[in-house]
Amino acid sequence: MDALAQQLNFILELDKLKAVYRQALVKADNNRQENSAEHSWHIAMLAPVLQEHVAEEVDLLRVIKMLLIHDIVEIDAGDTFAFSEQGDLDAQHGKELAAANRIFGLLPESQFQEYRSLWLEFEEATTADARFAKAMDRILPLLQNMQNEGGSWAKHGVKKSQVLKRNQYLEVIAPAIWQYVCAQIEIAVNKGWLKDQ
Amino acid sequence: MDALAQQLNFILELDKLKAVYRQALVKADNNRQENSAEHSWHIAMLAPVLQEHVAEEVDLLRVIKMLLIHDIVEIDAGDTFAFSEQGDLDAQHGKELAAANRIFGLLPESQFQEYRSLWLEFEEATTADARFAKAMDRILPLLQNMQNEGGSWAKHGVKKSQVLKRNQYLEVIAPAIWQYVCAQIEIAVNKGWLKDQ
Repeated sequence: MDALAQQLNFILELDKLKAVYRQALVKADNNRQENSAEHSWHIAMLAPVLQEHVAEEVDLLRVIKMLLIHDIVEIDAGDTFAFSEQGDLDAQHGKELAAANRIFGLLPESQFQEYRSLWLEFEEATTADARFAKAMDRILPLLQNMQNEGGSWAKHGVKKSQVLKRNQYLEVIAPAIWQYVCAQIEIAVNKGWLKDQ
Repeated sequence: MDALAQQLNFILELDKLKAVYRQALVKADNNRQENSAEHSWHIAMLAPVLQEHVAEEVDLLRVIKMLLIHDIVEIDAGDTFAFSEQGDLDAQHGKELAAANRIFGLLPESQFQEYRSLWLEFEEATTADARFAKAMDRILPLLQNMQNEGGSWAKHGVKKSQVLKRNQYLEVIAPAIWQYVCAQIEIAVNKGWLKDQ
């Protein structure tokens, strides 16, 4: 198969991400569940809009690419709720690694390597680009839950400490947004949407 | 309102694009209609994957930004089928311009100007970046229809000449993809998915 055929094959495979549903609800569309394709678009939009608040230097194109591809592995591995048990999250990582090999493996070799590396970089979050991307992926559900009377937090009895820990990427990379997030978490506790633990 | 508050307000407004439904069907999800948010993700993925086939020099970050924002105006203006009457398409453009002013106007002034300009550049398609972005937006429905027994073409009785004209951006900017598209169109005519006119 030539490169173009491989690339178009990959593009068509991506359609399946529109059938992977998450815990987050789309308030604007009768509170139906959100799928991972539209979620990926939304967080890819967050990065350029909020870049001015980032304290470290980042390469915006790499960040956006990471956000666009970060959930593609869910085509095979499915979505796991962020606040699941650690054992479930570990098992999920193994499934996602296999998925990255299969799905990015549809592409020509050099693109396979690029996308697999970008996805791993996002997962490990040890570079400034990946930390910024990760922070964007984590702030959006918070914004959505605050619009939606606690949304998935309230539904699953999530604790304040869990949300603080999950968003802590922001503290170093985007202090102004971290302050905003901490204030929102206090509001959520006061409204009973998050457990005060 | 400070910049961060304006930006987060804009981000939340974007949720509404997930409730704008298009003519294209998502084969992987029981042939439900596709929404413009997940469509925007899908075409933003196309650009980096197919960049090697582009004959002119393009700025990939600008192209991806255009693709991410190009349908946001539909939050107010709704989606118009690509092969609608010219009068309907002209009326749609006026609605979209007002929508661009309102929605991008939620952002701080410099971002408002940047996004409005990028959106207009995409619409006018007179730069290499915008032509590449436009070509990506137009090739995806073709790929989807070919997977779906003619999809929206068959449903609306679309003609071969309309699809050729719509994808002609490819001829100069990505000749290899244009050849592929022409071959696919012939297949679609032979299968009766497109009218041979």
